[in-house]
Amino acid sequence: MRNEADILKGRNAVLEAFRAEKPIDRLFIQDGLKDGPIQTILREAKKSGCVITFIKKERLDEMIPDGGHQGVAAYVAAYDYAEVSDILANAKEKGEPPFILLLDGIEDPHNLGAIIRTAELCGAHGVIIPKRRACGLTGTVAKVSEGALNYIPVAKVTNIGTTIDELKKEGLWFACADMSGQVMYKQDLTGPIGLVIGAEGEGVSRLVREKCDFTVQIPMFGHIDSLNASVAAGVLAYEIVRQRKFK
Amino acid sequence: MRNEADILKGRNAVLEAFRAEKPIDRLFIQDGLKDGPIQTILREAKKSGCVITFIKKERLDEMIPDGGHQGVAAYVAAYDYAEVSDILANAKEKGEPPFILLLDGIEDPHNLGAIIRTAELCGAHGVIIPKRRACGLTGTVAKVSEGALNYIPVAKVTNIGTTIDELKKEGLWFACADMSGQVMYKQDLTGPIGLVIGAEGEGVSRLVREKCDFTVQIPMFGHIDSLNASVAAGVLAYEIVRQRKFK
Repeated sequence: MRNEADILKGRNAVLEAFRAEKPIDRLFIQDGLKDGPIQTILREAKKSGCVITFIKKERLDEMIPDGGHQGVAAYVAAYDYAEVSDILANAKEKGEPPFILLLDGIEDPHNLGAIIRTAELCGAHGVIIPKRRACGLTGTVAKVSEGALNYIPVAKVTNIGTTIDELKKEGLWFACADMSGQVMYKQDLTGPIGLVIGAEGEGVSRLVREKCDFTVQIPMFGHIDSLNASVAAGVLAYEIVRQRKFK
Repeated sequence: MRNEADILKGRNAVLEAFRAEKPIDRLFIQDGLKDGPIQTILREAKKSGCVITFIKKERLDEMIPDGGHQGVAAYVAAYDYAEVSDILANAKEKGEPPFILLLDGIEDPHNLGAIIRTAELCGAHGVIIPKRRACGLTGTVAKVSEGALNYIPVAKVTNIGTTIDELKKEGLWFACADMSGQVMYKQDLTGPIGLVIGAEGEGVSRLVREKCDFTVQIPMFGHIDSLNASVAAGVLAYEIVRQRKFK
């Protein structure tokens, strides 16, 4: 479902958004503010589980060039998030073994949008992103996804590792994209699967990688380091498609 | 090879660049100017085969905010272009059947950079782009390619169709990426091959498509229209890799 703005400013607007349970990705509070209304906003923020960041007044002024922030701003998701259970229900409805993309720290909205677009087109049942150190469903992501956000559920979770543990109980296997892994063409990628893609440069974090059942690599024959994250996600996702549907 | 600036301004600077045979992508001349020095620059531009655009003074002023353009500006390639023969030589040197990516009208520098990055990593021998209606090797492309431009030859040709005809004489087959084609997993993509990728939205132009030996599609199972161009290029390029090296 589509919402309106990407950034909310001002105490009332932000407080109302929390009370209306709007999907807020991140709350910004000006350093040093501790008065009553700020405490109320912080309490609501903690209830909602959103990420809270304290920043200098100058940075807040830069973020809200029109002013009027009263020391408070928030990123609102452009789209509502789904639950992990919605993704499993989506697979069940289609009568297919679950196929989920888990993104461990993709920060670039263009990459996130392109990956959601790929996920929708390759027939994945959903995308899971973490709350922290990652890009949320902003307007840019929605735009780059070319409408895919209207069709594929995207869930946001506190901890990718914990979510992997829970999904293992549902029978899923987890493939971690990593240069040290087995060449993807030689690894069995059929059955209920979660494909874990890491951030550009850093790759999948160690804790998440250790939760995975195996690692797979895209074979590379060049001199440079790695593929663009959304290209890598597309290449791996389509190898899963090939093994599931065309083998 | 790396060059310096992306935009040249002023009559002497531009004229010198043409005379030094620097790789100029596009010449901009202020509407209405017809004096002697302008005629000289136009003559050099025509000799070099670069694209010439006449624009209003206001637009030129916007393009060169510091002023001093004297009615003349030019986009210089951030990197030197290779020749198509360099690409064939690259394949020969590696003892492999040629594998070339041809881009028919990719205008977004982020997509062009990501595709060059993919081409280098998947072991393609070169990339061919057209002179007109396409993005050249600008600084943005170089940056997005993450250094790949240092390792893979990129040639710029007047007409992709004519280049396909010439390369057919060298034994290459041409696969056109198109939604109406055979599913890529079922099409033989081994041997000397040119993969033709079109612009986002429009796809490969009719004239170029008709030159190709066959069309291939990435199977899609979603509701939206198409993959991002650089993701599509990656998925198709890696299906070629699979068939060439892992079958």
